[in-house]
Amino acid sequence: MRAFRLAAPTGFDALTPTELAIPKPGHRQVLVKLAAASLNHRDLSIALGRYRLPSKEQVIPLSDGAGTVVETGPGVTRVKTGDRVAGCFFQRWAGGEPREDNQAYALGGSLDGMLADYAVLEEDGVVPTPACLTDIEAATLPCAALTAWHALVAHGRLKAGETVLIQGTGGVSVFALQLARLMGATTIVTSSSDAKIAEATALGATHTINYAKEPAWEKAARAVSGGRGVDQVIEVGGAGTFAKSLEALRTGGHVSLIGFLAGAATVDPGLIMARRANVQGISVGSTEMFLAMNRAIAAGGLKPVVNKVFPFADAPAAYRYLQSAAHFGKVVIAFS
Amino acid sequence: MRAFRLAAPTGFDALTPTELAIPKPGHRQVLVKLAAASLNHRDLSIALGRYRLPSKEQVIPLSDGAGTVVETGPGVTRVKTGDRVAGCFFQRWAGGEPREDNQAYALGGSLDGMLADYAVLEEDGVVPTPACLTDIEAATLPCAALTAWHALVAHGRLKAGETVLIQGTGGVSVFALQLARLMGATTIVTSSSDAKIAEATALGATHTINYAKEPAWEKAARAVSGGRGVDQVIEVGGAGTFAKSLEALRTGGHVSLIGFLAGAATVDPGLIMARRANVQGISVGSTEMFLAMNRAIAAGGLKPVVNKVFPFADAPAAYRYLQSAAHFGKVVIAFS
Amino acid sequence: MRAFRLAAPTGFDALTPTELAIPKPGHRQVLVKLAAASLNHRDLSIALGRYRLPSKEQVIPLSDGAGTVVETGPGVTRVKTGDRVAGCFFQRWAGGEPREDNQAYALGGSLDGMLADYAVLEEDGVVPTPACLTDIEAATLPCAALTAWHALVAHGRLKAGETVLIQGTGGVSVFALQLARLMGATTIVTSSSDAKIAEATALGATHTINYAKEPAWEKAARAVSGGRGVDQVIEVGGAGTFAKSLEALRTGGHVSLIGFLAGAATVDPGLIMARRANVQGISVGSTEMFLAMNRAIAAGGLKPVVNKVFPFADAPAAYRYLQSAAHFGKVVIAFS
Amino acid sequence: MRAFRLAAPTGFDALTPTELAIPKPGHRQVLVKLAAASLNHRDLSIALGRYRLPSKEQVIPLSDGAGTVVETGPGVTRVKTGDRVAGCFFQRWAGGEPREDNQAYALGGSLDGMLADYAVLEEDGVVPTPACLTDIEAATLPCAALTAWHALVAHGRLKAGETVLIQGTGGVSVFALQLARLMGATTIVTSSSDAKIAEATALGATHTINYAKEPAWEKAARAVSGGRGVDQVIEVGGAGTFAKSLEALRTGGHVSLIGFLAGAATVDPGLIMARRANVQGISVGSTEMFLAMNRAIAAGGLKPVVNKVFPFADAPAAYRYLQSAAHFGKVVIAFS
Repeated sequence: MRAFRLAAPTGFDALTPTELAIPKPGHRQVLVKLAAASLNHRDLSIALGRYRLPSKEQVIPLSDGAGTVVETGPGVTRVKTGDRVAGCFFQRWAGGEPREDNQAYALGGSLDGMLADYAVLEEDGVVPTPACLTDIEAATLPCAALTAWHALVAHGRLKAGETVLIQGTGGVSVFALQLARLMGATTIVTSSSDAKIAEATALGATHTINYAKEPAWEKAARAVSGGRGVDQVIEVGGAGTFAKSLEALRTGGHVSLIGFLAGAATVDPGLIMARRANVQGISVGSTEMFLAMNRAIAAGGLKPVVNKVFPFADAPAAYRYLQSAAHFGKVVIAFS
Repeated sequence: MRAFRLAAPTGFDALTPTELAIPKPGHRQVLVKLAAASLNHRDLSIALGRYRLPSKEQVIPLSDGAGTVVETGPGVTRVKTGDRVAGCFFQRWAGGEPREDNQAYALGGSLDGMLADYAVLEEDGVVPTPACLTDIEAATLPCAALTAWHALVAHGRLKAGETVLIQGTGGVSVFALQLARLMGATTIVTSSSDAKIAEATALGATHTINYAKEPAWEKAARAVSGGRGVDQVIEVGGAGTFAKSLEALRTGGHVSLIGFLAGAATVDPGLIMARRANVQGISVGSTEMFLAMNRAIAAGGLKPVVNKVFPFADAPAAYRYLQSAAHFGKVVIAFS
Repeated sequence: MRAFRLAAPTGFDALTPTELAIPKPGHRQVLVKLAAASLNHRDLSIALGRYRLPSKEQVIPLSDGAGTVVETGPGVTRVKTGDRVAGCFFQRWAGGEPREDNQAYALGGSLDGMLADYAVLEEDGVVPTPACLTDIEAATLPCAALTAWHALVAHGRLKAGETVLIQGTGGVSVFALQLARLMGATTIVTSSSDAKIAEATALGATHTINYAKEPAWEKAARAVSGGRGVDQVIEVGGAGTFAKSLEALRTGGHVSLIGFLAGAATVDPGLIMARRANVQGISVGSTEMFLAMNRAIAAGGLKPVVNKVFPFADAPAAYRYLQSAAHFGKVVIAFS
Repeated sequence: MRAFRLAAPTGFDALTPTELAIPKPGHRQVLVKLAAASLNHRDLSIALGRYRLPSKEQVIPLSDGAGTVVETGPGVTRVKTGDRVAGCFFQRWAGGEPREDNQAYALGGSLDGMLADYAVLEEDGVVPTPACLTDIEAATLPCAALTAWHALVAHGRLKAGETVLIQGTGGVSVFALQLARLMGATTIVTSSSDAKIAEATALGATHTINYAKEPAWEKAARAVSGGRGVDQVIEVGGAGTFAKSLEALRTGGHVSLIGFLAGAATVDPGLIMARRANVQGISVGSTEMFLAMNRAIAAGGLKPVVNKVFPFADAPAAYRYLQSAAHFGKVVIAFS
């Protein structure tokens, strides 16, 4: 089968095409023929040697992919040959709380990932693809969409009528916008690009703020919420955003801290107290959450925003395109 | 001021028009000039002497009403003169869990209610009316809508993509349908009337079942959910419905038990276990829940279904109309 | 290896000693050399053909056992050879909510169980044994203790100062008493035997009620709680107990429904409403819950009550002894 | 009646004895004859003009006090004349989530407080004193004990077997130690004083760390937890402690942020993410929480640690003593 390996965490040129034998599924594992994979910022960080966790040597990169089960190992009952599935970022986090051990097995990091024609996955590490999605669309979900769901719904217990402040228009943020809208929330999207703001508006953002023009976006967000403050913030961790998020927050509000921050931020713990804020570090989610999210996607007819699709052989170009930050929505690699 | 009193719990003829002095608000109380009130099944039960709790003697009936604050007592800060508000069914349940003491002060029951030109209410016993609603619409919310919100959202933690089985098309059920839809849920509505089913469909019900034609509606509901079972049931307590609700439920699903059941039902506790079901007795909700619901109504533009409006003097006719069960949606009394 | 098989669900005489090859662990499985097993009422029901679920044909019975990992399959990281572990009743319920698929794989039922010298278990289907417990003690935990933990703590969110009403002195009830005490709760234990009441008192029960002498035990329990009602009930499902449990409950209290009830019970749903009761069907628990419970056992020095220990060859006698209901605490089979 | 007023926020000399008329309770208010009051750090900050919120001019200081109801206003039903009660820090936070409006009415800050012979309090702003406590002991609970309960139990959902890291031996920390122990948790207490460590050990601390001798106390705490990390941290906000608390935390652990921090701290949001930490700003608690805590205190026989008692006239001396930080436990003023 075709695959790329990351020869070393030295950059996109280290992505090396290779030919490998198709692996065999063991007890409660399945073999998935992949049709598409998608990229996340983490994949750039890993390739560039900037990720906070070490990867498997010569790892097959990418956490996100979707395809069809073509073989099942002994004891498999949750899926069967022919089922369309997406893989789960964390292969051993079936459900429940995050624990050190169930957070340790991540595709495209500590485990080989999805930039290959086939992958062996745990039976509890795949979820059926909603019938309304193509494999290309399903491949966008495992990391970005599930992070947004975990933050807003599984952690934040989003209710209709809440106001959600969403920073930027990266992968997680766009899914957060779509999911929040699906659940009857009011959304505020920030961006420094009028073009991206127009796209957010087209996707249904209730309010938008161009923070390049309005640096005191936290005050603007507070005003939009009628002075009460926003109920939830999707904090993606840009420079100086954390303190502003707390300013924008209502008493007792939630901040979901996602994204991979380069260094230390200065935060006033007194402001966390003054707001009775709840700040939660979020990293993707469990298989249980993924199953719930897929039901929401199916019921609401949510369509992931696919920005650009690259062929398998051009995987390095997909990396470079994502790094350019020109995208709104997801960058995908289609395998056929 | 005009008011009706229930001379005795002997029927609708006991509703007696009377003229009373306008009451004065005390510490942290407000005087509300009422513009509309709405009826619930409980009001029929109280008038007919069939309610499970004793009422105040010569009670001013009705729990649900809306109008405008015209005077505030000392210490009031949450609302001010001129604010449009609705009253809270429980006057002393600001928030938190139900307790015997915060459940004991209900309008139109242990306390005088809303069938009068003015009412003195606790400052924590009113909520601002969303700007998008008329007073007639706001008057429909306190009991029926809040019960539905409490059941689905505050208790049931509804998520987009869940399937909600809603029994019938009474006041709570119609609001449950509207709220569930607002939050991206799939809905199944049962009724014995094709006309009411058509109205439920027009309101956005995903699936409907005429249980007169399909007595095994629990099997039909289960089939609609793809065999998985429904996530939540709004159980209004008709004859034999509880056992069927458990049959329709998914493993780990929720049943919200509402409505005022006349007698004992037979239930197989083994089925509660087999389903790992969670059954919660729901009675209206707290001021905190009402505030949250109103934000959802405002954000989603939800319009209560007002079926028929009676003038103040015809209050007894409104009771009789509700008892006829001809309605779909709420029966309201307008005061001017 | 030695094992018993249940030749047919026709009674304890159908327990048939047999010699089997030692099985091999697959991907993420471990081979455990068992040192002890314990019995639960479910085991009697299965042997007698009265269980609500079908068992594997010729099943090796018993869900509860403990021993030492002697071999690990590929991919195992949570435990290693030499670790003392107990097995999990549900082999595929690592964490999160109960789902039909994670409730379907139960030892000694749909899967071969622990009445054998060795068992192959999922790596996520074992938990390390606290150092303070012997294997005989650890073998008592998987079903009874975890059910009590799930009911009181994982579901009921027990807080110090709550009052817990515990019906009877069966396996689950005795663990519920010990765990509730460990968490600072007030406990009320009911029994028809003064001897068992004395044992409950010796274990730290705050209050006891002999329901044979005091048939209105629900009133006595309510009185003990100062008229407020109890916060939680461990409802094991005897005849007529469910309605009494609701009577004893405080407004907003929790009833954990456990045990395997023979038939239908009559319950007044109006009482569930009047109490704003929360009734939850509980069936054992997840691996995540088991890990948390073991930390509580270790921190609190909780010692399971082992009533009687039988040798492996006398397994049928252990069944008969449990059926006699003479025990207080757990009946164990030691393997060496 | 006797009272002190804070003439201006200029220091302890501004505490001015005065004679005032006994106030009258209004609707749903009670008049309490106070027997004792206790001091918290907030009281020092307010007197010194360093508090983050403005106070009422000429405020009667102190949030914490206990005594006996001597008169009830109209509509009061939760308590009656003769009941021993403590006041609630937040007079208008009966239950539910913190909101800007229910956090705005704090005794000894925005409202007159407890350094007076009598106080008029909301009926929902008092809680009955457990019979096992003296008024002096009850006066220690409203701020410090309730903050600890809110952090560990209401927010942190403490379970037996969890490990709680408690910074220092101030008022909140000592109660956190006692409450955590009552619920079967393992406790780690840090202090720079061997004398205070000895007192913590005497109160039942499982582990202690002298951070003056062991500056890397976060590593020591992690080691004590077997390398897994602690489940909860009571973060009182000393210099540089926040980052260390996150280091000590287990994956998915909770940090309760309490105390009044002088300025900005540097925190690495990447560490919050890496730990999947949940950080919650905690400020005292609701009446509902206080009622629950008092049941725990009564059931467990918890005795507040009263360090020193001053007579009413020596209130300024009590302030100075608290500021000296010589205390372990609470500083109280007795009124008779």
